[in-house]
Amino acid sequence: MLPSVTIREVGLRDGLQLVKPFVATEHKLEWCRDDVNAGVREIEITSFVPPSIVPQFSDALALAREAVRIDGLVASALVPNLKGAQRAFEAGVQKINYVLSASEAHNQANVHRSTQDSLEDFRRITQERREKNLPTKVVGGIATTFGCTIQGTVPEKRVFEIIESLLSIGADEIILADTVGYANPAQVGRIFTEALRLTGGKPVFAHFHDTRGLGLANVTAAIDVGISRFDASLGGLGGCPFAPGATGNIDMEDCVFLVESMGFDTGINIEKLIAIRSKLERWLPGEQLHGMIARAGLPKTFTSRRSTSPVFISG
Amino acid sequence: MLPSVTIREVGLRDGLQLVKPFVATEHKLEWCRDDVNAGVREIEITSFVPPSIVPQFSDALALAREAVRIDGLVASALVPNLKGAQRAFEAGVQKINYVLSASEAHNQANVHRSTQDSLEDFRRITQERREKNLPTKVVGGIATTFGCTIQGTVPEKRVFEIIESLLSIGADEIILADTVGYANPAQVGRIFTEALRLTGGKPVFAHFHDTRGLGLANVTAAIDVGISRFDASLGGLGGCPFAPGATGNIDMEDCVFLVESMGFDTGINIEKLIAIRSKLERWLPGEQLHGMIARAGLPKTFTSRRSTSPVFISG
Repeated sequence: MLPSVTIREVGLRDGLQLVKPFVATEHKLEWCRDDVNAGVREIEITSFVPPSIVPQFSDALALAREAVRIDGLVASALVPNLKGAQRAFEAGVQKINYVLSASEAHNQANVHRSTQDSLEDFRRITQERREKNLPTKVVGGIATTFGCTIQGTVPEKRVFEIIESLLSIGADEIILADTVGYANPAQVGRIFTEALRLTGGKPVFAHFHDTRGLGLANVTAAIDVGISRFDASLGGLGGCPFAPGATGNIDMEDCVFLVESMGFDTGINIEKLIAIRSKLERWLPGEQLHGMIARAGLPKTFTSRRSTSPVFISG
Repeated sequence: MLPSVTIREVGLRDGLQLVKPFVATEHKLEWCRDDVNAGVREIEITSFVPPSIVPQFSDALALAREAVRIDGLVASALVPNLKGAQRAFEAGVQKINYVLSASEAHNQANVHRSTQDSLEDFRRITQERREKNLPTKVVGGIATTFGCTIQGTVPEKRVFEIIESLLSIGADEIILADTVGYANPAQVGRIFTEALRLTGGKPVFAHFHDTRGLGLANVTAAIDVGISRFDASLGGLGGCPFAPGATGNIDMEDCVFLVESMGFDTGINIEKLIAIRSKLERWLPGEQLHGMIARAGLPKTFTSRRSTSPVFISG
């Protein structure tokens, strides 16, 4: 038995967030089903933000209601506030990822309130869950954990304080996000080591962007200190509006390749994952797909965890 | 004092190896001088292969004779055999990097002889140096250390045997190369740990390609086990003929960014390094430059080791 690593698809949320042309709900669902067919067990399927702000997610409720019926899938959704959480509860997603920023400046720019006020909103969300006796998992996500394009440095002490607050309010899991691609492996090792100590057994997800090319180096550093849950997006979708030409989330195919090469079991078949890219190219005309393994092909030395023989993909 | 990491430019050799249009010798020299001005202390400037095989390196002797006069530069050159070494000795480079393959199949394809025969040639090179009483450093480089596109798996035991042979013959340094981009961080940690044990203080360089996206993850893993010398090429030049669209060597700017972010001192000013890219675009029309930091810009949180203030680069 190989040690297991979870790689969650966030392409449908983080990857589509900046994509202007609306992707049909049926295509989003096909993407989810193809992911699950490739072995993906968890997908952040959408964001419950006001449709006026991100029209791409105007189908959040309809999409979520279908996605939660996909066998073997944990469907999670991002929510920025109580109202979003209420809609997500109503849709029946298994998990809601409530995100606030460790950077005060970023939190103000994003949701027009202080980080402390966002923590209070998280308290209302956990209260609502308790009052309604819902089985939904409630997750605390911390954006700009590793630095902020507005504020610059984010004190590590502040990140740890927020983790403790989220846990004391009732977070079932924690996500630490490098929203702007500022993290480096030394910092990743330091912060996740302390995060694991603080969470004491509750799941901790690492959410890295590859904006400055260090995404997979940061995954490696996080694995080294015991992190086994990662966000990634198919084709590395999710460009940054402040960095033209820069990639967004770490590429999911490359991340699976990295993790499986190191001897961990993701449960994901890379070939099947790569095969979904051709659909993305049809559904997202004009979006550049990133990722190296899809172009270069798997090494002869790579043995897929889901196949009985070495896997060969032509260049 | 920060711990020091050496990043050697190999763009002039590995990066140009597959570039058909001849780059003028004066441009190659300007590239070297600009590198040195940015803080680069070592460059693999050319390869002493027969000009009929790689016309790009037909100016090896002329280039080397000028490059060795650049103040503050250690000019090294790749050589595939005794004849190449003799030309490199004649040119007066400070270091010759003799490369053979750990993969028998790759060595046969590359230099039409067995790895053992290549080791014998290395013996003749060290003898020549001794007889002529030359100050030139002689380095043993092992290609396909982490796997081979022809042979597949390369036994680690074989790599360690070759390291021991190279050292016993008289290698001053060792280079372990992931020629085809097959390495993963777990394997890198394992192999370099043993390599450092075998070399006992002699320098060990890591030479990674980014063909499958794991280049900087592998750098991180190598740093973790104590490696402090890396090859990289400006703009990530050096594509692989067997993987269209794939990048070649790890991108030098990104590698410097990674290493400096982690708190090491490369002595290199990234902004000056990035500035050379515009010249490469002129000198190498049609070649795609890779690298993320040049596109996304340095983080606000990044403090250049060579500046007194944080560095800002526009996207």
